[in-house]
Amino acid sequence: MNKNGISMAVIKRLPKYHRYLTELLNNDLDRISSKDLSQRIGFTASQIRQDLNCFGDFGQQGYGYNVKELLNQMNIILGLTKEFKTIIIGAGNIGQAVANYGKFEKLGFNLQAIFDTNPKLIGIKIRDIEIQDIDFLDSFLKEKHIDIGIICVPRINAQKVCDILVNNGVNGIWNFAPMDLVVPEEVIIENVHLSDSLLTLSCLMS
Amino acid sequence: MNKNGISMAVIKRLPKYHRYLTELLNNDLDRISSKDLSQRIGFTASQIRQDLNCFGDFGQQGYGYNVKELLNQMNIILGLTKEFKTIIIGAGNIGQAVANYGKFEKLGFNLQAIFDTNPKLIGIKIRDIEIQDIDFLDSFLKEKHIDIGIICVPRINAQKVCDILVNNGVNGIWNFAPMDLVVPEEVIIENVHLSDSLLTLSCLMS
Repeated sequence: MNKNGISMAVIKRLPKYHRYLTELLNNDLDRISSKDLSQRIGFTASQIRQDLNCFGDFGQQGYGYNVKELLNQMNIILGLTKEFKTIIIGAGNIGQAVANYGKFEKLGFNLQAIFDTNPKLIGIKIRDIEIQDIDFLDSFLKEKHIDIGIICVPRINAQKVCDILVNNGVNGIWNFAPMDLVVPEEVIIENVHLSDSLLTLSCLMS
Repeated sequence: MNKNGISMAVIKRLPKYHRYLTELLNNDLDRISSKDLSQRIGFTASQIRQDLNCFGDFGQQGYGYNVKELLNQMNIILGLTKEFKTIIIGAGNIGQAVANYGKFEKLGFNLQAIFDTNPKLIGIKIRDIEIQDIDFLDSFLKEKHIDIGIICVPRINAQKVCDILVNNGVNGIWNFAPMDLVVPEEVIIENVHLSDSLLTLSCLMS
């Protein structure tokens, strides 16, 4: 998969650039050389020049990168200059963690609703959003345009929930269920597979 | 980074193989061809043959892979034939989600203790493990051998917690804090950076 000819490998590195550039700006740093950035971020300077060249000519020989300009451009590329309307399905620990993570709101991910099946959770509010019965998911989606569905339900229900989302025009899925969901080609899926991550750790430790 | 000459790219794919093979075994499938596995898992058949060849000669021409044998071998490679003693630092939503995830226990990750700074959480039990004051972390580690520290504290405290872990001989860090921790070379870090994942999604959708 790629975007405007930019490889997935580069795309996967962009959020890290974004993280470091935001920190630099917060520390009032105006500009940075690829060498300095390299020491902080851990990519080689030539890798950095190559990656950032994909998006235009940001660097200036002997001057370095203008941090603010680069971050602005990065925001555009990462889609952070617009708002994404999101919903969370599954209000267990992971769903609640995502709902409570204020940083996402600041980045433009606007949480519109939370759904669950558990009667003990339905009606409870998380950051002023009342958890609704999942039976209302389909009708909710028919009324409201949602960009991203955040799937935090158990594995066994994940594909069913995903189908409801996709059938109602949701084009982005952030999936925390430990399985690979099947979606049409135009739908973008990003997985957070916690057990895969833990097994990577144990593999490297063994 | 690599392990016994196996590239990180292959290591990153192993947990997915493990997931699919476990499912096949649960469905009583004895053997599978690389072509069949390819259709399920989404890697090409030649990629699969290449990946699995790294670990020895599992496949048999015209017969396919013996699922049970392959899974056994995979368990060894992923370190799942031994037990890892783990602790969680930070009992917020993410920490609780990890603590409550029974699957990790089944895979051999044995949760020994949970720590937090919040007086409202200290003393509460999660799956029979009482949340302890983080002030006891250092002395706890001096008494007990721990393999993996799971860092679920806010960004601002993450490096401090990480240093305490590493100084007490913890060699594996599963880091959920949105930053890159600094550790000695022999310590293995695996990050779960939720915002990086969300930004990858928004980038691909833009």
